[in-house]
Amino acid sequence: MTPDEFRRAGHALVEWIADYRERLARGDLPVQSTVRPGDLVRRLPTTAPERGEPFEAILRDLDALILPGITHWQHPRFFGYFPSAASLSSLLGDMVSTGLGVVGLTWQASPALTELEQVTTDWLRDLLGLPAIFSGVIQDTASAATFIALVSARERTTQYGSARDGLQGAGPPLVVYASTQAHSSVEKAALLAGIGRNHVRAIPVDTEYRLSVPALESAIAQDRAAGLRPCAVVATSGTTATTAMDPIAAIAAVARREELWLHVDGAMGGSAMLLPECRHYWAGVEDADSIVVNPHKWMTVAFDCSVYLVRDSEHLVRVMSTNPSYLQTPVDAQVRNYRDWGIALGRRFRALKLWMTLRDQGVEAIRERLRRDVANARQLAAQVDATPPWRCLAPVTLQTVCVRHEPPGLEGEELDRHTLRWVQAINDSGSAYLTPAVIDGRWMARVSIGIELTEAAHVQSLWQTMRDAAVASAGAA
Amino acid sequence: MTPDEFRRAGHALVEWIADYRERLARGDLPVQSTVRPGDLVRRLPTTAPERGEPFEAILRDLDALILPGITHWQHPRFFGYFPSAASLSSLLGDMVSTGLGVVGLTWQASPALTELEQVTTDWLRDLLGLPAIFSGVIQDTASAATFIALVSARERTTQYGSARDGLQGAGPPLVVYASTQAHSSVEKAALLAGIGRNHVRAIPVDTEYRLSVPALESAIAQDRAAGLRPCAVVATSGTTATTAMDPIAAIAAVARREELWLHVDGAMGGSAMLLPECRHYWAGVEDADSIVVNPHKWMTVAFDCSVYLVRDSEHLVRVMSTNPSYLQTPVDAQVRNYRDWGIALGRRFRALKLWMTLRDQGVEAIRERLRRDVANARQLAAQVDATPPWRCLAPVTLQTVCVRHEPPGLEGEELDRHTLRWVQAINDSGSAYLTPAVIDGRWMARVSIGIELTEAAHVQSLWQTMRDAAVASAGAA
Repeated sequence: MTPDEFRRAGHALVEWIADYRERLARGDLPVQSTVRPGDLVRRLPTTAPERGEPFEAILRDLDALILPGITHWQHPRFFGYFPSAASLSSLLGDMVSTGLGVVGLTWQASPALTELEQVTTDWLRDLLGLPAIFSGVIQDTASAATFIALVSARERTTQYGSARDGLQGAGPPLVVYASTQAHSSVEKAALLAGIGRNHVRAIPVDTEYRLSVPALESAIAQDRAAGLRPCAVVATSGTTATTAMDPIAAIAAVARREELWLHVDGAMGGSAMLLPECRHYWAGVEDADSIVVNPHKWMTVAFDCSVYLVRDSEHLVRVMSTNPSYLQTPVDAQVRNYRDWGIALGRRFRALKLWMTLRDQGVEAIRERLRRDVANARQLAAQVDATPPWRCLAPVTLQTVCVRHEPPGLEGEELDRHTLRWVQAINDSGSAYLTPAVIDGRWMARVSIGIELTEAAHVQSLWQTMRDAAVASAGAA
Repeated sequence: MTPDEFRRAGHALVEWIADYRERLARGDLPVQSTVRPGDLVRRLPTTAPERGEPFEAILRDLDALILPGITHWQHPRFFGYFPSAASLSSLLGDMVSTGLGVVGLTWQASPALTELEQVTTDWLRDLLGLPAIFSGVIQDTASAATFIALVSARERTTQYGSARDGLQGAGPPLVVYASTQAHSSVEKAALLAGIGRNHVRAIPVDTEYRLSVPALESAIAQDRAAGLRPCAVVATSGTTATTAMDPIAAIAAVARREELWLHVDGAMGGSAMLLPECRHYWAGVEDADSIVVNPHKWMTVAFDCSVYLVRDSEHLVRVMSTNPSYLQTPVDAQVRNYRDWGIALGRRFRALKLWMTLRDQGVEAIRERLRRDVANARQLAAQVDATPPWRCLAPVTLQTVCVRHEPPGLEGEELDRHTLRWVQAINDSGSAYLTPAVIDGRWMARVSIGIELTEAAHVQSLWQTMRDAAVASAGAA
């Protein structure tokens, strides 16, 4: 494709994307895709084309084949999972990144890629109120960041065991701790790192779903008594089910005393620390060894942009570095080589989208939007609480409301079926998208607010939809 | 940013990117960035802007601040590392991906994301001549793919030890094998997986830098005799230094007999298998357990797009899966949930750029370009061989030529200084970019061809530049 052909196709796609976002704003697309498993596979050819096709044919298929298979994450009535808001400002940064087509293997391989990442992650660190001892690097996802944290912990506890026998030596088994509400990526990371499920402890939580510090202390004591070696604890700022905030200061005190690595999973909750009024939620965070915050969730930087902040970057580099001859350059001693800050050797120029988002929007506008979402969540929670048999199941700390409709007489598995039925009815209707989840052994519905287009009116319309769907489901029960 | 503001900025950026590619084609930018460490950091503000800025200001900074800090990977005289060709066709796919802003946590979270990935990786598998038993998934990089392969191997050998003690149990230590020429990501993957450097074997190579099968067999025998447990072998199709092709059929026979996982690192060389005349290089590949091929290298799909092909996808899912309540959907039993095929939970819609590249260009045009690059590499090698004291140091299997200028009387470290001096002189001049590397303990220069814009004339111009630079360096010695 020549630059001129790209001009023609690129301009058409800019219009296509703008039109798409306008359609979302008008709300005239079903939120959840209505295709059935295999529909797209069946409609696509079984082999790649031998000859190139006109761009118009591809654009037609985008509308006819791809769009029906999209669940619209940027739809104003998308309330599923956690928001992954992808602002158009960040899209511009991503276009430049791919347009330049550079790969950050080393500083020399594109100095601006490294230095803009250094500067923008410093900006973010300061905006979140973290001390300057932390340095940042952009990873793809919090799953990778948490894995890197646990490997770093493993290597600190074993005094760089990787350089010798790895985990295949004689030392006592390492143990990792996180609450029962921690994200599934914590256990996955521990298993990838070779820790083994027998050495991952799910620590009970208090009534507000925060890690119980006495339970943590007692698990550590028990493991020490059994000859095991406590290694790391993961505190969550914003759990997936309810956005609970683990008590970091108390956990940090335990970590310091017991010489555990403290990793703070602020993938969701970290962005809230842009708001001074939320800072109390992570009091003590300055004692963490590592923190992950995902600007690709609530801060509207298009996926993927997960920022890993680390206290001791020299330790990280020692754990992660490889230095084959073909990657050495004359300036290595003076620069940051981010390949030694993560798993991947090649790296996209992701800082551009973080930079463009912050510059185009400005921090104050981002803060205002976060406050809008918190207010909308609180209003919904107040309405739920005021409307029995609806019930909020957890405090609304950020922008997620956990609800259940509990008609008298419906209990246990019958109640579960009712919950899943009305949630699925909403999702299948295309009018909104919610994620159900289990809390205390029973299903509930999560309403997770945070897409750029979502205003109070959309949340209010959801509330009406929820009431209608629950009444219909209760009638069907 | 509203859709209308995006239209204005997006159209401007399409022009900016097209202009940038035209400047590259004209060759009027230095290939290697000329900035010094810290230059960009010093020129950027130390805090993020509180208020949004006009797009024109950002665009100005893109030209004034970012562009000087770019080493131009898409420049026709970029011969460094391996090519990471980023076609404008693939950029269109990336724009749509970010414009849609969907995240593939589950099939339901965007069916088209999953099914297009399934279809396009099937297309690629067939194009490479692999049997239908293999299924594909797109990872960010080969580093991640190789890590996933070694974890899969670890879990097969330990019969899912992760579900118990991980590597912290009583079993005999696992051992991983790869040649001395294997990529640094292999050792890194083994260390991340907890294997330990003491259990990673660097197997000697033959005179053409291919893994020596007798040496592999003898290392395995020695390890078994020492009570260790051989677990996996990585064969490389296209080593980083010289693009050597390990003898896969012979390695596969050993792997089968010894019950080792066979992972084929075809990050670079895999793309060559689009050419029937190259297929003999990976005879026996159908016996591999896993293969990685990077369309983001020579196939011109913009970074990142690394395809991991796996024989037993059920095993992979069992190793990688997590199934928290908030990720369960009613159709899980009927669909592929790619989160269980890798590290990350969230996933970009990467298949779009692979799809658009194949459709816009057509496979035949891609094959023609690969053949052009192979021919250019062979021509350069013939010229080098015909021009003493220049010397080719390895067979030209694909598109990389390994050369040294060896003036009479220059030996040992003096020769190394000469090599590094003339390579650095070229890189610093901005006229071309090469990567030096060590082979058999001495530095050499790698000329790695494969950027879309690189024609025979660019390689010929490089050859002249090399001769001039070497003469100047020899004079300075």
